[in-house]
Amino acid sequence: MRPALRQLIAGACFALAALCCLAQEPAKVLMPSWNPGPVKQSIVQFVVDVTTNGSPNYLSSDQRIAVFDGDGTLWAEKPAYFQLLFEMDRIRQLASGHPEWSSQYPYTAVLDNDVNTLLASGQKDLLDLVAATHTGITTDQFEQLVLEWLAGAQHPRFKRPYTDLVYQPMLELIDYLRANDFKIFVVSSAGVEFTRPFAQYLYSIPPEQVIGSSIETQFQLRGGKPALVLLPKVDFVDDGPGKPVAIQRFIGRRPVFAIGNSDGDREMLQWVATNPRYFVALVHHTDAEREWRYDRNLPIDKLDRALDEATSRGWSLIDMKKDWNKVFPPQANQ
Amino acid sequence: MRPALRQLIAGACFALAALCCLAQEPAKVLMPSWNPGPVKQSIVQFVVDVTTNGSPNYLSSDQRIAVFDGDGTLWAEKPAYFQLLFEMDRIRQLASGHPEWSSQYPYTAVLDNDVNTLLASGQKDLLDLVAATHTGITTDQFEQLVLEWLAGAQHPRFKRPYTDLVYQPMLELIDYLRANDFKIFVVSSAGVEFTRPFAQYLYSIPPEQVIGSSIETQFQLRGGKPALVLLPKVDFVDDGPGKPVAIQRFIGRRPVFAIGNSDGDREMLQWVATNPRYFVALVHHTDAEREWRYDRNLPIDKLDRALDEATSRGWSLIDMKKDWNKVFPPQANQ
Repeated sequence: MRPALRQLIAGACFALAALCCLAQEPAKVLMPSWNPGPVKQSIVQFVVDVTTNGSPNYLSSDQRIAVFDGDGTLWAEKPAYFQLLFEMDRIRQLASGHPEWSSQYPYTAVLDNDVNTLLASGQKDLLDLVAATHTGITTDQFEQLVLEWLAGAQHPRFKRPYTDLVYQPMLELIDYLRANDFKIFVVSSAGVEFTRPFAQYLYSIPPEQVIGSSIETQFQLRGGKPALVLLPKVDFVDDGPGKPVAIQRFIGRRPVFAIGNSDGDREMLQWVATNPRYFVALVHHTDAEREWRYDRNLPIDKLDRALDEATSRGWSLIDMKKDWNKVFPPQANQ
Repeated sequence: MRPALRQLIAGACFALAALCCLAQEPAKVLMPSWNPGPVKQSIVQFVVDVTTNGSPNYLSSDQRIAVFDGDGTLWAEKPAYFQLLFEMDRIRQLASGHPEWSSQYPYTAVLDNDVNTLLASGQKDLLDLVAATHTGITTDQFEQLVLEWLAGAQHPRFKRPYTDLVYQPMLELIDYLRANDFKIFVVSSAGVEFTRPFAQYLYSIPPEQVIGSSIETQFQLRGGKPALVLLPKVDFVDDGPGKPVAIQRFIGRRPVFAIGNSDGDREMLQWVATNPRYFVALVHHTDAEREWRYDRNLPIDKLDRALDEATSRGWSLIDMKKDWNKVFPPQANQ
């Protein structure tokens, strides 16, 4: 067969096959858990604008980088960051071997189940707690502990696994972005080793696209076999101004799409908003009934200055109560 | 049309189109710059083994992670790491504004073009030099300087742009790995901000797949506009035991394929070799005529303990003279 003829046949076959596929696809509502309104409209307008050939704001697919905060943005974060709840369970599990903990802060607060006191002590102290209780274990062992906890633990209010507390509208948004060739990164203030299994399980985000706070890690030979061992020292706090620094270190280019939910995300949003065309938004927790209602009145990680900035700079505010007709995915038995 | 019929037509069309494409492809030699021999054979055997459905060593595509050292593994590193040569050019450019440099080490060595003294001072000192000479500039400005240098500078021996000193066999190997769904990462001891434009230009490796040493970076508002500014302090040295630590921090899973060329890659190779099935290799610079010949007799970054370990553990040794029938790509005018 002559090459030109072969190419013609191949081209015709592909075109026909593509048409068949299109014909199979029934009409679907885009991101059905998002109510129509200015936020959904801005998202779609942005994506269409940067992905339409010939648009003055067109971005090639390698520039389509989207970053999401984790706790409170992609999944719930109450009564506390899930990593803190994991940590508290872990300490209770080990407590019988540590009688000294019964009179030593912060272990006393953990054993009294005093979440509010622990939260008030700040992000760095929480990381110290993680570092202290996991010293000397390997990264593989830590991952195993996280996976076991995720499989067995139950959320105190909803009596469902923690992994059920993922936001359905975010699942749909990330699917939509992926369908438009965006690469998705999680940029979380929680520990990276904790956040990775979570992001992988909930959103199929691979570990190399998860950035987080970290504990110092050391390469050691254990019985002649190489291992990476956690040390009792915080290495990097991926929060506030640390977020754009980590984005540069890990991604090396400026994302054009960012969503957060607290003051710890403010600098990340500011950084993304230096692009000529961008979408930035904050999730505003306004729904005490289906989820929680909070913003300025929290001990740490409040939504306060960033809320003002969203208003003054025209960033999108995702009003959970108004913009989302579903918060969590339906339960398997519903 | 009934769905079953539609599916049947679509399926038939795709199959036909795929066949047409196959028919168009002429038979090609796999990685033609690699001479037949045990190294090429091991690479191909490994790739076939882990990508063949039903193989006991089959790896899903998300587990196909390959890591490559940069200098001396993906591109030449003589007479010195290209980043050092860039740095020396930069210092010479700025010297007229810094009369104090004429009597201050290491600037004196730079101004005397004394590469050997500079190399003998070690990796950390070189990073200090970078940190010192780029303090206060933004990451965007630094990238611009690297791109301008790459466009204009000429290699002293080959009188060609530095970007011409990429290894042709590695271009072919990376293409082959990509065609088999491997994700490629560069894990370099050079600065990440320098290595990224290089890896992108030479191998189309995106910045988020380049890991390197780093200088502390700070988020600042400059004239009200957010910027990331380089500080005069080394943050992380991605060398030796730092490489597996960085791999865990950035990638979060264990690569199954690794190539390096010096003792600084030893721990990375050890880490990868903890997998049940893996390919690890060292590039051995044995070709003084076409490239350079060196191993144990270098001031820093020698190939010494790793060379012994390759022999004792059966790691592959890529003998540049024997295994590669081309080193660099043909010149445009040849």
